[in-house]
Amino acid sequence: SCRLFPTVREGITCGDIQPAAWRDRAAANMSQQAVNGVPARSRVLTVDNMNPNVKRVEYAVRGPIVQRALQIEKELKEGVKKPFSEVIKANIGDAHAMGQKPITFLRQVLALCAYPELLEDNKFPEDAKNRARRILGACGGHSIGAYSASQGIECIRQDVSQYIERRDGGIPSNPDNIYLSTGASDAIVTMLKLLVCGEGRDRTGVMISIPQYPLYSAALADLGAIQISYYLDEDKCWSLDIAELKRALNAAREHCNPRVLCIINPGNPTGQVQSRQCIEDVIRFAKEEHLFLMADEVYQDNVYAEGCKFHSFKKVLFEMGPEYSSTVEMASFHSTSKCYMGECGFRGGYMEVINMDPEVKAQLTKLVSVRLCPPVPGQALLDLVVNPPQPDEPSYTSFMKERTAVLSALAEKARLTEQTFNTVPGITCNPVQGAMYTFPRITIPQKAIDKAKGLGQVPDMYYCMRLLEEEGICLVPGSGFGQREGTFHFRMTILPPTEKLKVVLQKISNFHLRFTKEFS
Amino acid sequence: SCRLFPTVREGITCGDIQPAAWRDRAAANMSQQAVNGVPARSRVLTVDNMNPNVKRVEYAVRGPIVQRALQIEKELKEGVKKPFSEVIKANIGDAHAMGQKPITFLRQVLALCAYPELLEDNKFPEDAKNRARRILGACGGHSIGAYSASQGIECIRQDVSQYIERRDGGIPSNPDNIYLSTGASDAIVTMLKLLVCGEGRDRTGVMISIPQYPLYSAALADLGAIQISYYLDEDKCWSLDIAELKRALNAAREHCNPRVLCIINPGNPTGQVQSRQCIEDVIRFAKEEHLFLMADEVYQDNVYAEGCKFHSFKKVLFEMGPEYSSTVEMASFHSTSKCYMGECGFRGGYMEVINMDPEVKAQLTKLVSVRLCPPVPGQALLDLVVNPPQPDEPSYTSFMKERTAVLSALAEKARLTEQTFNTVPGITCNPVQGAMYTFPRITIPQKAIDKAKGLGQVPDMYYCMRLLEEEGICLVPGSGFGQREGTFHFRMTILPPTEKLKVVLQKISNFHLRFTKEFS
Repeated sequence: SCRLFPTVREGITCGDIQPAAWRDRAAANMSQQAVNGVPARSRVLTVDNMNPNVKRVEYAVRGPIVQRALQIEKELKEGVKKPFSEVIKANIGDAHAMGQKPITFLRQVLALCAYPELLEDNKFPEDAKNRARRILGACGGHSIGAYSASQGIECIRQDVSQYIERRDGGIPSNPDNIYLSTGASDAIVTMLKLLVCGEGRDRTGVMISIPQYPLYSAALADLGAIQISYYLDEDKCWSLDIAELKRALNAAREHCNPRVLCIINPGNPTGQVQSRQCIEDVIRFAKEEHLFLMADEVYQDNVYAEGCKFHSFKKVLFEMGPEYSSTVEMASFHSTSKCYMGECGFRGGYMEVINMDPEVKAQLTKLVSVRLCPPVPGQALLDLVVNPPQPDEPSYTSFMKERTAVLSALAEKARLTEQTFNTVPGITCNPVQGAMYTFPRITIPQKAIDKAKGLGQVPDMYYCMRLLEEEGICLVPGSGFGQREGTFHFRMTILPPTEKLKVVLQKISNFHLRFTKEFS
Repeated sequence: SCRLFPTVREGITCGDIQPAAWRDRAAANMSQQAVNGVPARSRVLTVDNMNPNVKRVEYAVRGPIVQRALQIEKELKEGVKKPFSEVIKANIGDAHAMGQKPITFLRQVLALCAYPELLEDNKFPEDAKNRARRILGACGGHSIGAYSASQGIECIRQDVSQYIERRDGGIPSNPDNIYLSTGASDAIVTMLKLLVCGEGRDRTGVMISIPQYPLYSAALADLGAIQISYYLDEDKCWSLDIAELKRALNAAREHCNPRVLCIINPGNPTGQVQSRQCIEDVIRFAKEEHLFLMADEVYQDNVYAEGCKFHSFKKVLFEMGPEYSSTVEMASFHSTSKCYMGECGFRGGYMEVINMDPEVKAQLTKLVSVRLCPPVPGQALLDLVVNPPQPDEPSYTSFMKERTAVLSALAEKARLTEQTFNTVPGITCNPVQGAMYTFPRITIPQKAIDKAKGLGQVPDMYYCMRLLEEEGICLVPGSGFGQREGTFHFRMTILPPTEKLKVVLQKISNFHLRFTKEFS
């Protein structure tokens, strides 16, 4: 596992992402037992002879805490007495599951696409019908049940390009550089897959932030690539420091071939929003160090803090002049799952590739064709996100009202979360400048750390498991995202409705005080 | 490439799947050229330093012929004169694109799920509303925009299990063994990924039929696994011969570790339907040879020939008694894309795993959680497919009428295709017993073979490209699926509406005669 989480010099050690032992425990000793009287050792496929890269994959956002949360929900239904009446799952950025209502316009168009007979229904506004007609017209046999082109429906890719051009103040975007995807995750993994090659010291190294969104570490484990961890600066609102990038890169060069730099902005799980200056510095660094840039920008509409603004990597790249805009290779990712719409279930998304070698692009197109196409309903949804109602259209007012309501509630919840946590001794919380999460630092008493060790658990896993059992609140331990050794955190979404969020924050605060007292 | 398409003894050589050179040609010499004045050699990511496994991936179903077909369609739109007025894409099993209408009931429920306000609308039948309410009730926040459990929505997995039990005459199915997926492709690749390990002669070998559906060879190339080709017997209606399985396995054991046997039944591209006896023999072989069975059964409703019947591998396995049913490890795959519904765009599907090691299952669950969940609209659609209207429900009659109409038209088209092709000298065609394709053998004159070689093309690619240019018909050359050396085929779907299919068959026949004459 040191191959995947390499020991980096200057005192940062191997264990910054602690391997979770849950999966082995979940099926404890089964491989040694007889099942139906047949010794399991005779199986073709066992945990000892399966793909070792898959075994290394970790994904804490849906890990053991969530498994236990689901169990507790079942127990509650079965009438088991608990100190709480419901489990609140604040482990994942799942807006609708937290009660956020879908945006009416989006769903009207999707219903029209699914059942075009509704186009005759005068209950639907004309702009919704026009969008549906246009999407259906671009589908094979006018049906969203037909496969699309593997890269995505052409007119939707054109709409994505126009959206990017508007967003970036007119900097051109070419629909041929747009690849629609099954959520952003799909495109991120595909892009990483293209980039991985070499063996031993020539193996591709990929720089990811710590803390990170664990899709990255999971994909790198799966691909057998080398993870190069660079640490965000918690003391400076989780900002990115170029000196730290350099440190991590130089250390990694001794054992792998660093080729990729991944950035998440706005940050997940950290909620920071990068300054224009920082982005410029990152781009300069990528050029100097000959790195492919992957910009995860799925929270581009989720910016709340005063003075913060979303700057796309592409816009900054092009503003830096042709020396950069014609050389730095980059991919940027977006999704229908976040922002104001939160349509996670549709698995819609896109990536834009910039300065990609045409031969590699042909390989990319070939590779995505094997999976035929991204889900067409998700493509349709993406089209509406990048081409929303315009001021002269009938749905504009209600659409904007719904959109604004979601985003201002999120801004309010971001403030509330930061403020509440910072009143609790032993919890410190950076401002949630953007995205949908807070990643506060928690002080865990030494006695609790010892207790966790005795149980074979990572301390923040022990903390979160206790919180779940005692308060019914499901968070993700910081160890699932990576953190500096000796520090502890958790990730919580700010998505619950304000009144429920207040309850959540109160319960966590009470628990933290109780837990601290217990182990003092 | 011999590693991926290993030379097997007894005269079957390396080149049974000819590497297509199209992708390199598509971007000819670009990597040597300057783009924007910057020499491309300075790029981070080039075709020379990208993932070599990706380069080995081939997927003919969306290969160069289809690329050219799309170009020709654009040319037609721009008014370029051609000897035809439209391109007919018979390269892919895309029912709706071929004009098949979606099944009303399925789309009504999907529209209700997308826009639940329609539940108040009395235009929708009560059974459609009930299905939608049940699905929404199982979604987070009652929205298909929420993430589902990674394995799929629990009540849908229960419905899948009940469907399997009904299909298999009561043999039990456990919802815990059901994994919903993004089409069948997703589950097939995931299952193969779990199974691949080892290096050198210990590398996992996977037995696939030749001809095969190229998802398999593509996935094996991507995963760096060893393809073990076994040949279906064209002279016996493309049936599977156990002696040929043994030959291929024994030869492969000298250079890899064979662990997996993949079967497609009903067959793609070959259209054969396996007999119960054949399936029993295959299962016995898998047990004796210690192989994991992967049964691709996505065409389970597509059986047309008299005397043919779909037998699921699971049912046969359980009928063979506990010696088999409690030991043979298996995964079976199904999809919403084929059968009578043909809803490819929704990317719905499932797999059932049988006798899987519980520890491996925990790993599988963890692995699928990284991608969060399959598209929820596709899950909803799958639920309707496995839980269709019942005789006492209002939509039953119209649903059955639509379903039967599709399946009987397909049966008629299967007969028509076989009969027509077999009247053409130089084309021989096995009965299309099931699935959606015909894979006729074509005689290509030696002079045409020489001509193709001169152009650097595989002969059947040359044939199909000429057919496309001259008649506007898009097929896939047999080389994209694999075929015995020296034989040539193409794959054509039988999906076009009957009247159009007649035109297609006539045009291919005319072309074949003209082509044969030209090179005689």
